Amino acid sequence: MKLTDLSSKVTEWFNGTGLMADIVISSRIRLARNIAGFNFLTKCSNADKLAILNRFKTVLLNLDILHDAAFFDVDNAAEIERVFMVERHLISRHMAAATGPRGVVVADNELFTAMINEEDHLRLQTLKPGLALTACWQRINEIDDAIQQKVRYAFDRRLGYLTACPTNLGTGIRVSVMLHLPALKMTEQLDKFIAACREMNLAVRGLFGEGTEALGDFFQISNQQTLGVREEDIVEKFTNEIIPAIVNYEKRAREELFGSQNELLEDKLARALALLKHARLISSNEALFLLSNLRMGVNMKRITNIPISTINELFLLTQPGHLQINQGRCLEARQRDLLRAATIRTRLN
Amino acid sequence: MKLTDLSSKVTEWFNGTGLMADIVISSRIRLARNIAGFNFLTKCSNADKLAILNRFKTVLLNLDILHDAAFFDVDNAAEIERVFMVERHLISRHMAAATGPRGVVVADNELFTAMINEEDHLRLQTLKPGLALTACWQRINEIDDAIQQKVRYAFDRRLGYLTACPTNLGTGIRVSVMLHLPALKMTEQLDKFIAACREMNLAVRGLFGEGTEALGDFFQISNQQTLGVREEDIVEKFTNEIIPAIVNYEKRAREELFGSQNELLEDKLARALALLKHARLISSNEALFLLSNLRMGVNMKRITNIPISTINELFLLTQPGHLQINQGRCLEARQRDLLRAATIRTRLN
Repeated sequence: MKLTDLSSKVTEWFNGTGLMADIVISSRIRLARNIAGFNFLTKCSNADKLAILNRFKTVLLNLDILHDAAFFDVDNAAEIERVFMVERHLISRHMAAATGPRGVVVADNELFTAMINEEDHLRLQTLKPGLALTACWQRINEIDDAIQQKVRYAFDRRLGYLTACPTNLGTGIRVSVMLHLPALKMTEQLDKFIAACREMNLAVRGLFGEGTEALGDFFQISNQQTLGVREEDIVEKFTNEIIPAIVNYEKRAREELFGSQNELLEDKLARALALLKHARLISSNEALFLLSNLRMGVNMKRITNIPISTINELFLLTQPGHLQINQGRCLEARQRDLLRAATIRTRLN
Repeated sequence: MKLTDLSSKVTEWFNGTGLMADIVISSRIRLARNIAGFNFLTKCSNADKLAILNRFKTVLLNLDILHDAAFFDVDNAAEIERVFMVERHLISRHMAAATGPRGVVVADNELFTAMINEEDHLRLQTLKPGLALTACWQRINEIDDAIQQKVRYAFDRRLGYLTACPTNLGTGIRVSVMLHLPALKMTEQLDKFIAACREMNLAVRGLFGEGTEALGDFFQISNQQTLGVREEDIVEKFTNEIIPAIVNYEKRAREELFGSQNELLEDKLARALALLKHARLISSNEALFLLSNLRMGVNMKRITNIPISTINELFLLTQPGHLQINQGRCLEARQRDLLRAATIRTRLN
């Protein structure tokens, strides 16, 4: 499998289906793991990194329970290929920017990834569209068990899984949900929402995880505690309490927009559609914001002639890496803005 | 004549005709005059102000050479009427905000105004569309002479006309030209242009004169020197040197936009048109900026199906005072933004 096999289609976790799909884009669980007998990566020689990489690559590519597993070498990838992989959430920005032997195994139609030599030796990740953390947990747990048949993880009976950063110690789990909250933003309730999340000890991040701001009204909510808690309890709390509560906030904000703020809503939607259909130069940030408004309009049934799949496709395909991979070459910013605008215009008109 | 007789039509000086009309909106000359035997206004009692007001009102309304002269009482005008008069440049912001007996005589289809008790006892003003300072000067000179048949101005043989502010002393003349310079702005050459004007001892002001910033790429250029110069020399220098030089700068910037910056130009024009045709809420500032881009597009023959008269009409009629006078009542900001967007949308679609 090559990256270009992926580049023209929407990743499955972003297909707009699943539970609470109008507000919950996707669910994701990742586990941080390290092999016993090797240093953590900050104290690892390149030879050791290569050994770790090859070990996990072999194990994962031969794991029966993974479907269509493929390995992508990040160290030797071209810059636009790395950007592309970040855009599809196959790898993290951190991994794209690092050096040394490292790579990612992708399987299950991009719903499973395993970054090798990111911050830990191994970062497993399962994704699903909509609110589906239980399914993510079942799948990742199953894969993790299968790997443990072949590899001895660094594990302490009292502390649990040992990780490079103490914030991941114990379960090594990160449960996160990507939410689309344009109405909370439009009604100026984001600060309140973020403060409430912090109080519940949840991290609020942007579209591309740690260190990225919220772009186009997309937010990732994730747990911060990994030590002394059961994985199932975190998953259950997210599924039954936290996410439904946030979804309700956003729904109430959308109802407010339908009512007293109707003119503001109409204006935002009309502007987004007009600019997407007519502008000649669109930056990736602006595209995110405009498509975000459009997505809300479609989900609120205010815009009826555009399928949500078209919008999701445009979200993904108009990112800089996708544009360049699909053109097969590097493009200057101005050229990308032109191509992005043309792509959107053609698709929407 | 009532204000509502004016409110639905475009002022003649803004009709988009005349010399260099694609860049020069209008030419304007004003003369500052005071009656001998009265204090300047800062030291004037209300009784004296009333006497001055009545005196000039009578003289001006009975001046044979003025066509359709009408008087508007500013002191007793409603707030939206004052706003309306400022928007049409019948009175200054300063006069709208002041107190005490004051008013304006309007004649010649709004191409002549005489503010009574603004900063000086009398401020005469003639306007023309396009570059037409010589015609403005001939007309104002003729009117000024006619007034002098009836009123003795405060005049000193050595200093010339005495004025409330020493910056107007001597000729009391202000020659100014309203320019539309969107390409200089788009190509980021405004700072250079403003610095050049300052070097030539010219004042650069916004759409509504002193103390107002440049809105929607409109700039007023005017002389600063009034003492020890002949009026005809100022008019000639503006007509033959200063304005043609600025017009050439703007033209070169437009050519640049046609060439290397063509995509940027296309984008600005497409965005302006899309937003004007589709937005549901438009503020007066945004309307100015968008209509400004549209005006350039039409003048550059990039937009062909909208007459310049429609754009000029929209510039004027979508201002807050015009919207409210035409509705016959005060409107909240949100209501104005709705009505403005609807007015523009209807006119352009």
